[in-house]
Amino acid sequence: MKEPGFKKIAIVGMGLIGGSVGMAVRKCSLFTVTGIARRKESIEKAVKIGAIDNGTIDMKQGVKGADFLIMAVPVGVTCKLIKQILPHLESGCIITDVGSTKREIVETVDTFLPRDNFFVGSHPLAGSEKTGIEAAKDSLFKNATCILTPGTKSSSNSVNSVKTLWEAIGMKVIIMKPEEHDHLLALTSHLPHLAAAAMVNLIADKDKDIIPVIASGFNDTTRIASSSPTLWRDICLSNKTELASALRAFRELLKNIEDSIRNEDTPPLMGLLEKGKRIRDALNKNQR
Amino acid sequence: MKEPGFKKIAIVGMGLIGGSVGMAVRKCSLFTVTGIARRKESIEKAVKIGAIDNGTIDMKQGVKGADFLIMAVPVGVTCKLIKQILPHLESGCIITDVGSTKREIVETVDTFLPRDNFFVGSHPLAGSEKTGIEAAKDSLFKNATCILTPGTKSSSNSVNSVKTLWEAIGMKVIIMKPEEHDHLLALTSHLPHLAAAAMVNLIADKDKDIIPVIASGFNDTTRIASSSPTLWRDICLSNKTELASALRAFRELLKNIEDSIRNEDTPPLMGLLEKGKRIRDALNKNQR
Repeated sequence: MKEPGFKKIAIVGMGLIGGSVGMAVRKCSLFTVTGIARRKESIEKAVKIGAIDNGTIDMKQGVKGADFLIMAVPVGVTCKLIKQILPHLESGCIITDVGSTKREIVETVDTFLPRDNFFVGSHPLAGSEKTGIEAAKDSLFKNATCILTPGTKSSSNSVNSVKTLWEAIGMKVIIMKPEEHDHLLALTSHLPHLAAAAMVNLIADKDKDIIPVIASGFNDTTRIASSSPTLWRDICLSNKTELASALRAFRELLKNIEDSIRNEDTPPLMGLLEKGKRIRDALNKNQR
Repeated sequence: MKEPGFKKIAIVGMGLIGGSVGMAVRKCSLFTVTGIARRKESIEKAVKIGAIDNGTIDMKQGVKGADFLIMAVPVGVTCKLIKQILPHLESGCIITDVGSTKREIVETVDTFLPRDNFFVGSHPLAGSEKTGIEAAKDSLFKNATCILTPGTKSSSNSVNSVKTLWEAIGMKVIIMKPEEHDHLLALTSHLPHLAAAAMVNLIADKDKDIIPVIASGFNDTTRIASSSPTLWRDICLSNKTELASALRAFRELLKNIEDSIRNEDTPPLMGLLEKGKRIRDALNKNQR
């Protein structure tokens, strides 16, 4: 494992992701990890579970001497917080984030980033429907994929540094354009979240009698509906265009299936089910 | 555990469900289990894994002396096979099935059932995206729900017998009308299957680059897309009316979300996500 040559990492946000990154990084014993959070209790918890070496609620103090900054905060506040922190950053400090959308964040940060700081977008594909540092664990990222989305101003050196960090905690890194990321994630993550939430909403007005009728298929399909509403509202709005297109394509496909069922026109229905099985089976084989 | 007072149970169909029922029933050591299948190899496999005491490909011979018959075959052929078997059945023999839809089957069987036989629809809510007797296990039904849907001709004695059988192998039995079953299952099972298949179809034309981008959320949400296409085609067609209504309601809800996202009209989106989380969280608490 290559060791990234940092001295101090600052992590803003002590939730599930921030806490887990801290734990994983400290397990490598590479460098000092400082946590920055809004509330003292979050810092105390993070120190207690070993996610950080030390922490503070003072941003300026927290980033002092840091050559690497990880923004582990919701998509909706990432850019605003980076702007607030910038004046206090050391020259050369590399910034990354962990957000589920990338185009808006990378484009916005690029507009105000000074020459001597670098931003490379990151999206570690790890998480859970749970939130909060209580759910943090150092193994959260092990063998999972991390997507890097450099901006127009990201130096190749900064991209390599960010890559090395995620690899050091066991992730497989792939690099793509922010807009490609958002297009693919709309289909593989954002749409499934909304579909799950919608399916749960459809049973909302039913009698309690529906509960014993619910089996593992429904539970698996809708597990992600338990995710944080504010977090996902922000993700949906941040990936508005791609997500709206994905929703439209999904609705059109569902309309075709509905027609096929109403008219007992079997071939389109069978085609959908067969293609679905073939591709889903292949995913099982292709993935770890 | 109350023991159902049968002498011989015949099971038609040696797949995942038929095999698992046989294994579970024989584990109770209650009575002789005879398997009936189309192919000799299926019978041999079923005997080998202990799913049946003996088996045959001859229906007439298989049901001889049986006072309980379980149709463990796909929804699309259940009624046709019951009709074929009826002339060979012992007087008083009780019939049940394991199909995922109930109204069509119960209504159809009621039209041709003779006075001295009884049919009670069953839907054990257990299964898997896997098929075939290779995946069978005696614990498949343990603690799961079985929905009974008596027809207009089901005697209370036959309903009790079927109930006792499923309870003997560890299931929790609930009783409802066939049309109520189909309405609820359209929302909790049939719609989620089609939604999963549709989401997988949407990524079908993407580059192979999409594979590492797929995380656990997509995998869980679409797991059931690996189910048998022919089995699910038949289920969809058998529950045509309810499923088409569920699809329409789902599409309309998705349209509202899409509009809400396009217009950055946050409250409807937030309402959907919050309601989804509240109900999905409650399911976790209410279920085993």
